[in-house]
Amino acid sequence: MQQAEIGLIGLGVMGAALALNIAEKGHRIAVWNRTTEVTRAFHAGAGELAAQIVPTESLEGLVAAIRAPRAIILMVPAGGAVDQQIAALRPLLGPDDLIIDAGNANYNDTERRSAEAEAAGVPFIGMGVSGGEEGARHGPAIMGGGPRAAWDRIAPVMQAIAAKYQGEACATWMGPGGAGHFVKTVHNGIEYADMQMIAEVYGLMRDGMGQGAAEIASVFEGWNEGVLKSYLIEISGKVARATDPATGAAMLDVILDAAGQKGTGRWTAIEAQHLAAPVPVIEAAVMARNVSSRLTERAAGEAAFGAGPEALQGELSLDELEGALIAGKILCYAQGFTMLDAASKSFGWGVPLPECARVWREGCIIRSAMLDEMAQALSEDPARNLILAPAFTAYLQKHHGALRRVVATAALKGHALPALSAGLAWFDLMRTSRGTANMLQGQRDFFGAHGFDRLDGKDIHHGPWGNHA
Amino acid sequence: MQQAEIGLIGLGVMGAALALNIAEKGHRIAVWNRTTEVTRAFHAGAGELAAQIVPTESLEGLVAAIRAPRAIILMVPAGGAVDQQIAALRPLLGPDDLIIDAGNANYNDTERRSAEAEAAGVPFIGMGVSGGEEGARHGPAIMGGGPRAAWDRIAPVMQAIAAKYQGEACATWMGPGGAGHFVKTVHNGIEYADMQMIAEVYGLMRDGMGQGAAEIASVFEGWNEGVLKSYLIEISGKVARATDPATGAAMLDVILDAAGQKGTGRWTAIEAQHLAAPVPVIEAAVMARNVSSRLTERAAGEAAFGAGPEALQGELSLDELEGALIAGKILCYAQGFTMLDAASKSFGWGVPLPECARVWREGCIIRSAMLDEMAQALSEDPARNLILAPAFTAYLQKHHGALRRVVATAALKGHALPALSAGLAWFDLMRTSRGTANMLQGQRDFFGAHGFDRLDGKDIHHGPWGNHA
Repeated sequence: MQQAEIGLIGLGVMGAALALNIAEKGHRIAVWNRTTEVTRAFHAGAGELAAQIVPTESLEGLVAAIRAPRAIILMVPAGGAVDQQIAALRPLLGPDDLIIDAGNANYNDTERRSAEAEAAGVPFIGMGVSGGEEGARHGPAIMGGGPRAAWDRIAPVMQAIAAKYQGEACATWMGPGGAGHFVKTVHNGIEYADMQMIAEVYGLMRDGMGQGAAEIASVFEGWNEGVLKSYLIEISGKVARATDPATGAAMLDVILDAAGQKGTGRWTAIEAQHLAAPVPVIEAAVMARNVSSRLTERAAGEAAFGAGPEALQGELSLDELEGALIAGKILCYAQGFTMLDAASKSFGWGVPLPECARVWREGCIIRSAMLDEMAQALSEDPARNLILAPAFTAYLQKHHGALRRVVATAALKGHALPALSAGLAWFDLMRTSRGTANMLQGQRDFFGAHGFDRLDGKDIHHGPWGNHA
Repeated sequence: MQQAEIGLIGLGVMGAALALNIAEKGHRIAVWNRTTEVTRAFHAGAGELAAQIVPTESLEGLVAAIRAPRAIILMVPAGGAVDQQIAALRPLLGPDDLIIDAGNANYNDTERRSAEAEAAGVPFIGMGVSGGEEGARHGPAIMGGGPRAAWDRIAPVMQAIAAKYQGEACATWMGPGGAGHFVKTVHNGIEYADMQMIAEVYGLMRDGMGQGAAEIASVFEGWNEGVLKSYLIEISGKVARATDPATGAAMLDVILDAAGQKGTGRWTAIEAQHLAAPVPVIEAAVMARNVSSRLTERAAGEAAFGAGPEALQGELSLDELEGALIAGKILCYAQGFTMLDAASKSFGWGVPLPECARVWREGCIIRSAMLDEMAQALSEDPARNLILAPAFTAYLQKHHGALRRVVATAALKGHALPALSAGLAWFDLMRTSRGTANMLQGQRDFFGAHGFDRLDGKDIHHGPWGNHA
């Protein structure tokens, strides 16, 4: 029997979709799942792609079915399962055989596994795959990390299965070690922030303007024809448009307002803290999800202080909401790319920032028209803050006034806009050359003798506080 | 020679001050420093306290000078130096001898050291000491963590040297393991936030109201007579009042606006993320310090977008600034205590929250009149969010309007208020029983089939999106 070109372990939703995608693109693939029945059912349900798929019923069988040097994708739950699978698989492999963790790993784990593999002299790739089941099946965005030579071996397959943006494959090597999973983590953090800002504007329409779900759907549909054109705006329109089969009510109006999360937004916030590269819009989005689950406290808060959001009296237009969202989005991405730049420099990865933006243009959850412009701006100067790239400076000059009016009105009327207001505050810090941290430095020197720099560079670096002996 | 009651290693600024404090309170103390010259100079400079101090010139000498069972305080730089000192010291000690790390340890390190000590059957205390040099010398706030029995052995000394609030010693056992250092970390995070909110209001006075440093000093001096009475408001007034000896200018006007930090604010933000217990005001404060150091980018931002803060035209009064600061402070502390509660429950520590507030009333940097009210509110119900305690509900009812007007005006006029606006957004989330996370859940189910809960509890937990096979 003809040997397979590549192997895959783990036929859950994502693994199965990825295997079908690989088979469909003409690459013979051997698959194995811990539960043989799952493997058989997968193969039986693969239709005409079944001929390209080699089902196997043991790890040894999987390895034997793949042409050497082998490449085997792991798509198992992130965490200990990955380590266990590597431990079980590696002894069966040759020194040139490549293991690819395509799950949603914490980049710290990928760094550790990369170091272990390097010490053992075997290749290992950590690869972020974004786009959900749909993306995995028909074209995800793929962010690879690990030895460049190992990536180059699998790049043809990854480019074949990846989403395409105007013919360019959304699959790129982001750097060694955990770079690919790190880029995927930041992607997910931005995803949290994009979603939260949309939810904030939705709240202004619903509670401030008294719009029903169908009206709101029309607004999102309109925005999806403009600067905000993106998958998340598109699906927000579809979510708002949908009707509950059970009750006939708008779907949005029957969904509980308590958000779940799987932790990648939190990872982004934590790594940003370690890097001292602030991502306040993402932090605000994670915060909002956490607070949303405190239903009892929120109800008690409403009882104590009165319902939060008040009706607007025509203070804001839909155009202003759109402008605020455009500005907020740019500010959030500027923070995200700055964080990636800091990580890349800190870890010596050399992450190609324009490539991040290009890879995110299709296949992944945050795909949007604006990412193409961001790729262009970053390719001009990857180290420059996005808000200082002329195209985005122009956007912000046009729209920061709308963001101001939206944040100010919401503050007065009790609408919570944590992400949009965090974006604005960061923007105002970033455009103020004489800030207020001199007060912090004065306080720190007063109570802790921490010292400070002077504006005039004179050689006295402590204040005359007279409180220290 | 009479043996000492306690020992101390590390005669830097904090260690020396603590040793003098202990000697002054009548407890004979043996001291040792890696550099003997430092030990000799310290003893020579101790004046009449020298008789209570036993200088030693080797670790063995130190151990021999202390009465068994011994208690030895480490005041060495946090990190590897603590581990090295423990490794050098422990073999010289008996199984009942107690090591106390009084440095600024990351609580994760204290947890590890506690576990190692427990496995070895020896006692170990991790102890947060707040108040800077001044506090260490004359009365710090002390937050102990580790075995209760070990704490009880040293409690009399710690209570003797601690700050006193109306006669009550600010020294308390916070729980086992890293509990004491954890409480200290949250203290420091709150300190960052308090300082940042003061700096934000300072900016409104300076750039919005055109006030000079002396006028601003008078404002802080006035506020220090009211609800905001606190060490940080007091020293902000003194910092604003001070004149630069070199130039005669106001001290504040010669200090560079780039804030330093030693990382404890960041630790708080990271641990809050791990606990899913949001501290957005603290996060904003850490962010603001990080951004403050980006001087070149901020200047470029001002060039691109025009100077941030515009002059106010009488939109805000000083009373409104005071009200905003009162509200922001309460919101920040509510977040901090909620985080402590979450940590205590997650780690099984049983941290006595009212005791935290009591310990912080004196000696530490965040000491304030309001902490006494907080201790009272927490003792009524430690698990209740502070904003729902009647006394603080009343404060917020009175002042959240001022916070709104301040945040709104700043948003329109370009003044960056990251911490105050983060507090307001959190407050509005917490007082809105029907939020907007239903949109997030709709999006998540659309692209990832994550499912959602329904308001009406009906048994359909996915939307009719029609996008999944």
